[in-house]
Amino acid sequence: MTDALRRRGFHGVGVSDILQQAGAPKGVLYHHFPGGKAELAVAAIDQVVDRMVAGLDQLLARQPDPMQATRQWLEAATGRLQASDFESGCPLATIALETTAADTALQAALARAFDRLRQRLAGALTGAGHTPARAEALAALIVSAYEGGLLQARVARSTEPLTRVTDALLDLLVAPAAAAPAPAHPSTRTPPGAPA
Amino acid sequence: MTDALRRRGFHGVGVSDILQQAGAPKGVLYHHFPGGKAELAVAAIDQVVDRMVAGLDQLLARQPDPMQATRQWLEAATGRLQASDFESGCPLATIALETTAADTALQAALARAFDRLRQRLAGALTGAGHTPARAEALAALIVSAYEGGLLQARVARSTEPLTRVTDALLDLLVAPAAAAPAPAHPSTRTPPGAPA
Repeated sequence: MTDALRRRGFHGVGVSDILQQAGAPKGVLYHHFPGGKAELAVAAIDQVVDRMVAGLDQLLARQPDPMQATRQWLEAATGRLQASDFESGCPLATIALETTAADTALQAALARAFDRLRQRLAGALTGAGHTPARAEALAALIVSAYEGGLLQARVARSTEPLTRVTDALLDLLVAPAAAAPAPAHPSTRTPPGAPA
Repeated sequence: MTDALRRRGFHGVGVSDILQQAGAPKGVLYHHFPGGKAELAVAAIDQVVDRMVAGLDQLLARQPDPMQATRQWLEAATGRLQASDFESGCPLATIALETTAADTALQAALARAFDRLRQRLAGALTGAGHTPARAEALAALIVSAYEGGLLQARVARSTEPLTRVTDALLDLLVAPAAAAPAPAHPSTRTPPGAPA
């Protein structure tokens, strides 16, 4: 189910495809998931995010610096995309973009899923000294870098956009001073007295 | 076409839906687009990105500081998402996540589309003093923030994830020094002699 969703999305996958892949008759599906395909998709979303959070736990156990863990998380996603010949992005994103407001249960499951990813990253960031508000903002940006980077790399059939996203994010997070050249146009935050 | 793609994606939209919306008979479609739905989708992608690049041009004409223009670009997307009752995300992302490697023409059109967005942003960033390599990396991160933020906000039916992404990105870009608290775990980039 997860693999089919990752490659073809919620509306692209038929119940019969899922059952064929699982080798199960239709009665089994509706016995365990009376809500049919939508309920099955919610279970798949929960399973995907369980696995993603467990992956982050493992990474952060080995690499307690959340910035370096973020780099390794993005690099691992880059590796998986390349190994799948640019097919496997993030199944959460694929389902998310297919849902409409009518898919209430699916959207709620996806909102919970992204929230769990953000909370896991934000927890590591507060542990490293960031305020809770800043940690939550950075976590939302890291999840965006992951999803937006995969999106650009997948259609380009090249790791380059994702590598650039990783480098830009980590440069800003780890060595922020490198981000500030002398601005050609004075920023609204330029301190008074600074050269224009 | 663009509106239907934005809400329902490439595979969710039938040729008959498109023709109904356009009030056109089938012969007209295949006369102008002998490649059928895929060719029509490529034309729609090109039109979407033309409009997005023109929007960036206008923004940058009014607001030459690319950092502040980025903030306004993200805020405008947040406003459009909210005004559509959390339906309208980015049509490029929706189509991108539905395509597979078999959709060669669509993926190539999407890769070009994201590349044009990145190039427009990178041009503004080099104009503001960034090196070309850094400008391209930052542009990929900004496009990721846009796409990944919209994705998270849309399923959450809340502007909050996108607002956080915008704040985190702009804090890092405009006031980078605020990004570096005393690390709980020394970063691998801590200079020798710095307090642990």
